[in-house]
Amino acid sequence: MDYYIVGILLFITLFSPFTKSEPTKLDRPSNETELIHGNSKPNCKAAEPTKGKQWAVLIAGSTDYENYRHQADICHAYQILKKGGLKDENIIVFMYDDIAFNVENPRPGVIINQPGGDDVYEGVPKDYTQSAATAANVFAVLLGNKTAVQGGSGKVLDSGPDDHIFIYYADHGATGIIGMTDGLIYAKDLIDVLKKKHEAKAYKTMVIYIEACEAGSMFQGLLPNNWDIYATTAANAEENSFGTYCPDDYPSAPLEYDTCLGDTYSVAWLEDSEMHDLRSETLEKQYKRIRRRVFTQDLDFNSHVTQYGDMKLSKEFLFTYMGTNPDNDNYTSMANSKPSGFSSASQYDAELLHFWYKFHRAPEGSTRKLEAQKELHGKISHRMHVDHSMKEMGKLILGSENSTMMLLKTVRPLDQPVVDDWDCYKMLVKTYEEHCGSLLRYGLKYTRALANMCNAGITMEQMAAASARACAKIKP
Amino acid sequence: MDYYIVGILLFITLFSPFTKSEPTKLDRPSNETELIHGNSKPNCKAAEPTKGKQWAVLIAGSTDYENYRHQADICHAYQILKKGGLKDENIIVFMYDDIAFNVENPRPGVIINQPGGDDVYEGVPKDYTQSAATAANVFAVLLGNKTAVQGGSGKVLDSGPDDHIFIYYADHGATGIIGMTDGLIYAKDLIDVLKKKHEAKAYKTMVIYIEACEAGSMFQGLLPNNWDIYATTAANAEENSFGTYCPDDYPSAPLEYDTCLGDTYSVAWLEDSEMHDLRSETLEKQYKRIRRRVFTQDLDFNSHVTQYGDMKLSKEFLFTYMGTNPDNDNYTSMANSKPSGFSSASQYDAELLHFWYKFHRAPEGSTRKLEAQKELHGKISHRMHVDHSMKEMGKLILGSENSTMMLLKTVRPLDQPVVDDWDCYKMLVKTYEEHCGSLLRYGLKYTRALANMCNAGITMEQMAAASARACAKIKP
Repeated sequence: MDYYIVGILLFITLFSPFTKSEPTKLDRPSNETELIHGNSKPNCKAAEPTKGKQWAVLIAGSTDYENYRHQADICHAYQILKKGGLKDENIIVFMYDDIAFNVENPRPGVIINQPGGDDVYEGVPKDYTQSAATAANVFAVLLGNKTAVQGGSGKVLDSGPDDHIFIYYADHGATGIIGMTDGLIYAKDLIDVLKKKHEAKAYKTMVIYIEACEAGSMFQGLLPNNWDIYATTAANAEENSFGTYCPDDYPSAPLEYDTCLGDTYSVAWLEDSEMHDLRSETLEKQYKRIRRRVFTQDLDFNSHVTQYGDMKLSKEFLFTYMGTNPDNDNYTSMANSKPSGFSSASQYDAELLHFWYKFHRAPEGSTRKLEAQKELHGKISHRMHVDHSMKEMGKLILGSENSTMMLLKTVRPLDQPVVDDWDCYKMLVKTYEEHCGSLLRYGLKYTRALANMCNAGITMEQMAAASARACAKIKP
Repeated sequence: MDYYIVGILLFITLFSPFTKSEPTKLDRPSNETELIHGNSKPNCKAAEPTKGKQWAVLIAGSTDYENYRHQADICHAYQILKKGGLKDENIIVFMYDDIAFNVENPRPGVIINQPGGDDVYEGVPKDYTQSAATAANVFAVLLGNKTAVQGGSGKVLDSGPDDHIFIYYADHGATGIIGMTDGLIYAKDLIDVLKKKHEAKAYKTMVIYIEACEAGSMFQGLLPNNWDIYATTAANAEENSFGTYCPDDYPSAPLEYDTCLGDTYSVAWLEDSEMHDLRSETLEKQYKRIRRRVFTQDLDFNSHVTQYGDMKLSKEFLFTYMGTNPDNDNYTSMANSKPSGFSSASQYDAELLHFWYKFHRAPEGSTRKLEAQKELHGKISHRMHVDHSMKEMGKLILGSENSTMMLLKTVRPLDQPVVDDWDCYKMLVKTYEEHCGSLLRYGLKYTRALANMCNAGITMEQMAAASARACAKIKP
């Protein structure tokens, strides 16, 4: 009965001021904005050689062939930085490295990130792969803490006060969370690391690009504008990001690939960086370009690329972080000025797409077809389990069938982080996972409900009781 | 233990002479054959007006939106016959009629059979719809037995000795079986009806077109060549037929359709009949054209259009059965002589495609997405149940894990029907269904194993015991 009283109070608290409204067409990134603020003349100003070192940390958080695209994005980024002139000793790569030689890969030893694209796997440094590609190592590397690193190459972000740092991440994310191969990275912990780095004067400027659902929630209300850090994210704090070059997209992955080759935001910036003279392209210009490219006509398959942190850095040239490929020296903005739009699949469905196409393309009666049918069934069963347990839990805690959906639609103002009490949030996630199984990766879509429970004062004890009941009959 | 002895004997009996070999590339329908035998000059000979009446019976066996394509085929056929000059009083249509106004249909009241196609639903006579679209009514109608008809318009095939009959069916099929909305039609029973019709001198000539998996098994070794009946089938007696104009085909169904619009064999003959002057096109010519069009490069998604019965009828003109559209009077074979190839999905997957696309295209978090996820899960669960129970049963009866697969690969010589003892076959199907649930429609793919069990002398008692054990723990 207590649940119902709590429920009524929480409905009043939660569902009044910040319930998410439907996106409107006015949201569309505008060309005009660029014309007013952008630098439309090529080469009218160019980057000076940087004094400090250029560092990059490239992180693919996912594993498994159905997430091919994230490691492909990261490898592609490496190739651009390498051609741009960054040194291998200053590029640190996290990737599970189970794609290139995966039994499902139609081109063994090769990873592509575009339908007609070149191999992007060759030469990628294997700094932190397999069991070394962990969240703890990401933190240790970012902090330059050699002794804390477990396994891997031992390369860390050993940067000084004149140095420039570029961090690029691609995987699934959620409300104030991005995934790693072994668990979750919370926004608060990432921000704490950046704060330490700032306080240690371990960089001059830093740029962070994040490809993940709700990636904006890693910075919203958390990243100050005076740390010399500028970030852009594939999506704002409350929406999905999307895979692209999938088997049923246009343009689609080659027929032999039953997986998505890239992600919209990632491919947009990678292809943009690949073609331009980065000495004369500013971060702001790239931000606007990719924002426009990622935004599609279909509001259900859409995200808003968003920027956070120190906006004055956006006037800097990409060259400072990525170098530039000498082949692009004569690039003019008239050429290839209109990159094609995308068709896309949500990060959640992009994963399932692989199993569907594996199933659908396998010959009738083949062992492969039966195997894929089982995998597809397993993935959908897991989704249904998560959907059911989350719905039940919302009902048990807040007293209504629709509580979880309402919690998911409740968003915070743009100047506030998605959750106030991060310890509470971590504890609710942990408690749910103990009773109902891992949230990775489909379950991540429900984390906003858990964050909002914390925001509304739900305790760990209430959560534990509800999780135990919701998942009593279901094997996680 | 008895099972194992039976098993050894049956392996020797079954798996030696007739085990299906892999199809070879030599199987490809040849252009040369047509050049030798075909009539390559248009209008060099033309059909005379027929003396008797022209009758048609059009039968869609399936129900539900995921099988849109079968009713679309049938409606399209009606439009061709109507434009060809056949009278409504002589066209009898069986269709469940749950497509045009289905909640899933993006164009309510309209059915299309091609990506840019016109509505084919308008004007289609609703002779036998809903609960009247039964197997028993098909037989009663074919026999012209008005008193046996239950429900529907009461129209029957009241044909005389000068009349020409065209029968066209589309739905799922299997070994010696085609489906109807309420159950199965066995080849033996259809042949018995044709025999009665022949003995009653109730037609001059008859042409039958069947779109179904393994459709050849309805006639192989069963239809004599002296009954003045000529038939063509979408597939030979041992292979799938295929849906086409599906969401991921090229050309594909329009984006708002998450279902296949047609079937390869059906669309091939319908589009062929639609464009030609049927006074100068022979059945043989159409057979060769559609055989060539249906055969694709991909051997896993392929079928051989096959002809049966009285081959001299194949020299007749299509006009005798379909009339001709006066708009095509000036058609020359040079125009549109190369219709495009198909991409296709097996009848089994075509059904699942709908649920996948409904799921995949629904917005994240929508009720529709959850509903589609549940439907997709249900369909795959059913498949896994059937796969598992059939495997178990093979093991119990024949003693080996692979028995069912071996039984499925065992085919009979081309001059023999797929089963000898049809009562045994019906009984095994019935017994399986009593213990393990309906075989419609995915389970149909296993009927060859049951037919071969009859051919090898398995009794109903053995089948009952094995089914009961195989499905003891599984709710059908």
